[in-house]
Amino acid sequence: MFSNATKLTVIAERLLQERIIEMLYAGGAKGHTVFDGSGKGEHSNRRGDRAAVIHDFTIVQLDVVFGNSDEARKVAEDIADTLFVDYAGIVYLTPVEIIRAKRF
Amino acid sequence: MFSNATKLTVIAERLLQERIIEMLYAGGAKGHTVFDGSGKGEHSNRRGDRAAVIHDFTIVQLDVVFGNSDEARKVAEDIADTLFVDYAGIVYLTPVEIIRAKRF
Amino acid sequence: MFSNATKLTVIAERLLQERIIEMLYAGGAKGHTVFDGSGKGEHSNRRGDRAAVIHDFTIVQLDVVFGNSDEARKVAEDIADTLFVDYAGIVYLTPVEIIRAKRF
Repeated sequence: MFSNATKLTVIAERLLQERIIEMLYAGGAKGHTVFDGSGKGEHSNRRGDRAAVIHDFTIVQLDVVFGNSDEARKVAEDIADTLFVDYAGIVYLTPVEIIRAKRF
Repeated sequence: MFSNATKLTVIAERLLQERIIEMLYAGGAKGHTVFDGSGKGEHSNRRGDRAAVIHDFTIVQLDVVFGNSDEARKVAEDIADTLFVDYAGIVYLTPVEIIRAKRF
Repeated sequence: MFSNATKLTVIAERLLQERIIEMLYAGGAKGHTVFDGSGKGEHSNRRGDRAAVIHDFTIVQLDVVFGNSDEARKVAEDIADTLFVDYAGIVYLTPVEIIRAKRF
């Protein structure tokens, strides 16, 4: 009754929330959750490797469980390549097991 | 010092929170956390396969780490079978490692 | 493009937040997130094994993804040994996969 699946987690500044949600559904998500939090992280700067700064920011964490792990990987790469070159944020994948696989 | 364990995560409409907490402790939980968030997901409808609708809703996420993975699986199935036939919500399991296993 | 990593999760009473954050960065964290929630758990008591009580409390959940899993384990043990002998709280590790490993 349990199936393997992959949870995609995106942690980002709140101003990116709507763009991320669009990318999640374009990539096959059938649902998502959003939690508000705070945090600290590196803000990359494409002008040079040494320019990364660490700063505090208000964040959102978005989670989507994908029944299809390839979809999760594709969306994770798209978000990292598109948004997190210029903005602070991270994306990671977690292995999970789900019930009622048709919902994911 | 680390032991394998299973985290049970339940994401549901807030109105189900107390019923879920009762089921978690009846199934062996020794603690839990609750986080408030928002989200979007499928609301199944038992009257027909085609009637699922996606809607926005205010959610709670409940997490419990079970030292006994069989207990986690049993509670996950009970919650899915009892509550998520008629209500929106998902349940999934994540493999974790714990310290101080007697607390779980 | 994906690398294995380890997420450290700490769930604790809010009054411990700053001490935990200090320990996370002393142990190699390059970023963290904090979420406010509520929960219930065992409060151990070092005076005797039978004295554990379960009580409700307002909690924070702190997450850090460590590219170096040994660092995650070391910090998890330090926090459990230093803080969670006298205070309620748990710490656990989750296997994850990350992109842009240099940020972690």
